[in-house]
Order: sequence, then structure tokens, then C-alpha cells
Amino acid sequence: MPMSRPPLSEFDLIERFFGARFAQQGGRALAHAESLGIGDDAAILAPIPVGEQLVVSADMLVEGRHYFPECDPQSLGHKVLAVNLSDLAAMGARPLGFTLSMGLRAPREAWLTSFSEGLYELASDTGCALLGGDTVAVPSEAPEVFSVSVLGTVPLGRALRRDGVCPGDQIWVSGHLGDGLEAVRRRLAHLRLDRPTPRLALGEALREWAHAAIDVSDGLTAELRHLLTASRRRSGQPLVAHLSLDALEACLGPLLKEAVAGKRLSPREAARVAAVSGDEYELLFAAPSENGPHIEERAKALHLPVTCLGSVCVGPGEDLLHWHDSKGQPIPAHEAPGESFDHFRTPTAP
Amino acid sequence: MPMSRPPLSEFDLIERFFGARFAQQGGRALAHAESLGIGDDAAILAPIPVGEQLVVSADMLVEGRHYFPECDPQSLGHKVLAVNLSDLAAMGARPLGFTLSMGLRAPREAWLTSFSEGLYELASDTGCALLGGDTVAVPSEAPEVFSVSVLGTVPLGRALRRDGVCPGDQIWVSGHLGDGLEAVRRRLAHLRLDRPTPRLALGEALREWAHAAIDVSDGLTAELRHLLTASRRRSGQPLVAHLSLDALEACLGPLLKEAVAGKRLSPREAARVAAVSGDEYELLFAAPSENGPHIEERAKALHLPVTCLGSVCVGPGEDLLHWHDSKGQPIPAHEAPGESFDHFRTPTAP
Repeated sequence: MPMSRPPLSEFDLIERFFGARFAQQGGRALAHAESLGIGDDAAILAPIPVGEQLVVSADMLVEGRHYFPECDPQSLGHKVLAVNLSDLAAMGARPLGFTLSMGLRAPREAWLTSFSEGLYELASDTGCALLGGDTVAVPSEAPEVFSVSVLGTVPLGRALRRDGVCPGDQIWVSGHLGDGLEAVRRRLAHLRLDRPTPRLALGEALREWAHAAIDVSDGLTAELRHLLTASRRRSGQPLVAHLSLDALEACLGPLLKEAVAGKRLSPREAARVAAVSGDEYELLFAAPSENGPHIEERAKALHLPVTCLGSVCVGPGEDLLHWHDSKGQPIPAHEAPGESFDHFRTPTAP
Repeated sequence: MPMSRPPLSEFDLIERFFGARFAQQGGRALAHAESLGIGDDAAILAPIPVGEQLVVSADMLVEGRHYFPECDPQSLGHKVLAVNLSDLAAMGARPLGFTLSMGLRAPREAWLTSFSEGLYELASDTGCALLGGDTVAVPSEAPEVFSVSVLGTVPLGRALRRDGVCPGDQIWVSGHLGDGLEAVRRRLAHLRLDRPTPRLALGEALREWAHAAIDVSDGLTAELRHLLTASRRRSGQPLVAHLSLDALEACLGPLLKEAVAGKRLSPREAARVAAVSGDEYELLFAAPSENGPHIEERAKALHLPVTCLGSVCVGPGEDLLHWHDSKGQPIPAHEAPGESFDHFRTPTAP
């Protein structure tokens, strides 16, 4: 209870399983004589370069809700940081450092070693330093919890917000969508991409070419609405998006493509799965049409496909999203990609 | 499971219960045309002033372990931030902003309103802006979890670390100790100080006068060992502390004083309770003896008592802490303040 010391005292586990590994990491967050990593009441960071500003985000993952209890700890270590780095990517920010707080039932040495390896690998690859954290015990029947808060930097005034969409902008999405949800639908959780790559390099490049960006954590349709709602509020204009279902069908993930090829899903059904699949770690962004070639060139250099889904114009009407087919014919609302997979019939197992 | 949308979607609750209140807060973290508070993928901060560096800390609180399930939500809102601000105080840092991630069983409107009031009041008083967060659902039988990560600033190179203790330094502690543990021991949890004040003003003042500081989250004895162990490692000198049990008896909290007056505890027993009581939100610090008058003067101006417990010298021996009585006679190890309250007989209820 409140005054008793928890079985796992603050920093002990963090220092034991993460300290040594991360101490060698360095990174710009701690690259200064007056900086200090984990082990004190708080970390002390190298001064932020003049002309840059901080970007801050936080995410919490709960066992059984955001990951399977039996999941590979190395993948989980990767994922707890990746979800946060994806938020930085959506801001066009460069990673600086993060804190990690863990609610664990009991310290399991092998598990924590693997977890820290997955975490360290991504942190090291992205120059994101572990700055501190906390370890607390949760009851034996409770789910475990991981909470990360991440810091990044952007040049002053250059962050990619979600409210910057302008009339005439094209709407783009990176990568392939839908396989996360499709794997779960087909009870093939082991096929899920378990080391998602936050699109940091694309995000940084988009500071130059895009007006607004967001990551696809809640699914494409929901994130499109977030972009438009925020931009409507900021601009005062009734912005709407006109979107091609064919274009969306062109960025289906491999599992969904296979389902279409095997005629287990129609292309349109597959596109609707792709439109609501969350946890996708891809960027959805809006850019002036004249920047399209630059965006495609940069994406090609990053070996990352990007797809233009449509464009934005000023109203009229309350509907934010208007889907059309290859002939430009409107898709009826009840057939258009929705907000959740409740709209779908549950498929039979493959 | 992983791909389904959680019942409480990201930021929804944060925006609803915290957004409006905190939007008006302002504060230096967001006091810039190119800054942005909660509602995007990440917050964008005002540039950090040149000549300052960031200090970062994180803490997680679990229901039933760090607070009673039936505790007043306003006090809990205060506490989740206070524990983090206490870490900033121990670094001599000034608060800048924080993220809040919550694992909740279900959103309870009245509860969240009270919680946000307690949180807001302390955040507002200390100029610490809410920068973002996450809200996730935990199963109905699981404990709720609150995770805060806090940012502060210090002038470059002026942070108070725990490894700066020097031979000849005096050891000081702020405020009164022991009532937290005493209330729990006497089953008087409602008497616990439930709005602890992080010692931020003292911490900032100590940048001028102290060599090292730490907050008393794990209990005085444990924190003294942390100070000395870190400073031994840094200096390479076998530092030890000589401490007066009488001085410790002079900073007992009111509940402990009452227990001594009512002869339920001897002064020495009470001092041993005070020495192991954690969660105390007081600062333990080391300062050159010539700075003593300045420290007392500053503390007086802050209406905060400070007590000099003893001083530090170079070895010999393995024991870090040496307690003595008013005549300078050593206290035998088995009677000296220990590491936990397991050392005590359980008192009868008052």
C-alpha cells in the first residue's frame, strides 16, 4: 500500500536491464559535458540547438489490448518506442530521447533482456536516447503496462501539424495498409508485421513538401477526418476530400492482396478493411499538387511507396469524405469505407 | 485485442477533461506563436532559452500500491504531478511541462473532473503545462495506472546531481519526516498529508548553495546511501556521513511528535520511523558548511524549516552512515535507523 516500498524499486530494473546497454548509446540528447543519463532524480539533456523547438508525445500500451500476452518481447520492446516515434514522424520531427515507465507483474530476466534488445535496437537506429523512467509492480492478475514519452526536435516553425490542409492539396499515404487488421480477422496474428518502421525520414522530408501530416494509428478514414476537422477549424473553410477507391485498392498490404487474388475478399471489401485498419505506422499527408513529383522522388529514394488518394476542395455539405470509383462515379455512403470493421461481415477462416 | 479500437480513444478524454482547462493555462512551455498544446500527434514547445538545458523525469503510480482505491481524486490529480515535480526540485530545475498517460477501467465523469482539478491547480501554481498524453482502457478487475513524464529547465551546468557530495559538506533535510509512514502504521490513512508540496523554490535556491540533492521518495536512510554511493563513485573517495539522531528527532512530523508526547513511541523509535518513511517530498542535500547561514536564511524566507543532520568526511570503513547521540556517542548498528520498517515492532493501534 502507499507507504510500503514496491518490490521493484525505482530505476533498479531500468538501470540493470537498460542502463549498461543504453549508456554506450550516446546520441545527441546526452552529447554534452553537462548532460547526464539515467541514474539520478532526472536526466539532464544537452542544450537544444538554437533555432530548434521540442516536440513531445506520449503513448501507453496495455497487455491484452495493444499486444498479445504471448508476443515476442523483442518485438514489444521495438513497438513501445515505435508507436511514439511514429507520432514524431507525423510532426516531421527528429527523435531526441524518451522515458520508459513499466508496470510489471514480476521481473523476468530473459524476458526483460529481450525486451531491452528490441527497444535498444530501434532507439539506437533512430538516435533516440533513453532518458529515464520508472518500474513498478502490478498485481499478479493485472495486465502489464508500458508508458513511453518521447522528445524530438524540429526547426522553429517547421513542424507538420494536422490542421494545415489547404484547398487544392493532394492527399497522400505512405506504404501499404490493412494487413494488421486482416491478420487479426484471419486469426493469423503471427503474420502481423511486428517490427513496424516509423516513417521518420519521410516525415523529415515532408517538412519541405507537405502542409499537414498525421500517422495512421486509428485507421485511414478516422485520420482523414482528423486532418480535415482540424484544418476546417483552423482555416474556417468547409474543406472536404474527394478520394479514389481505386487508389486505395492500389495500396493494399500483401495479406489483403492475397485475399483478393484468392477471391476471399472483393477488391472493394479489401479496400474497406485497409481504410479502417489502425496501428499502421504510415503517414497520411496533404501537399500542394505541384509538390507531387518531389514527394514521389523523395519516397523513391527512401524505397517507400507513396500513393495519392485524391484531393481537397471547399465544400459544400457536411460530409467530409467523398469516395468515387475509377469512372469518377460516387460510391454510395453505405458501400464507402467506414469508421470501423463492425461494418463488415466476419469472414470465414481461410 | 491489438487491432480493435480501445473504448477510450487517444486524447479524447484528455481533450475533454483537461483540454479546455489547460488551454487557458499558457505557461512558458507554450508561450510562442509556433507552439501547440494537446490535440495533434505531439505538442510543439516554445524554444528553450539559450543557456538553459532540459531536465526530464518520469514516474508511474498504480492503484492499490501507490494510492488507496478510495482516495480523493483531486488529491490524486495533485499527487501524480507532485511526485514528478519533486524530482525536478531535487535537480534544482524549474517546471516546464508534462505528459499524462492514464490506464482507466471506465471514464467516470465526476471522478475525472475532480482529478483534473487537482492536477490543474498544481500545474498552474508551478507553471507546468500539460503537453499531451494518452488514455487507454484496462480490464474491469485491473488496477488503474497513471504515468507522468515531466520536463524542466536549469541554467547550463547548474543542475543539482546526487553525485556532487564533497568531504566537509553538511547534510541537510527540509521539512518534517515520518508522518506518512506513521499514519499508515496507525491505520490513519486519512491523516496523511494528501497534497504534498514539491520543494521547487528551495531546489532552485540550492543551485546556489548546495553541492548535491535528492528527494526523499525512498526514505531518508536509503536516499543518504544514494547520495554517498553516487558521490563515492564520482569522486573516488570513501565518503561517509556522521549523523545526529537528536537532529533527526528535531524534524519529526506532527503525528510522530504526538506519538512521542503520548509515550506511544520513544523519541528514538520515532526517529527510526522518520528515517525510513518514503514518499516524503522533502529535499535531502549536501552543502559546504560556510553556506549554512545562507541556506537557513533562504529557507526562512520560504517558511520551510531545514535541519542540519551532520556532515560528510572521508572514510575509513565500509559503513556509509554513522549515527551518534547528543553526547557524540555512536549508536549501535542494531539501534540505528535502518533501511525499512521491517525493523520495527508493529505498534498497537492508538
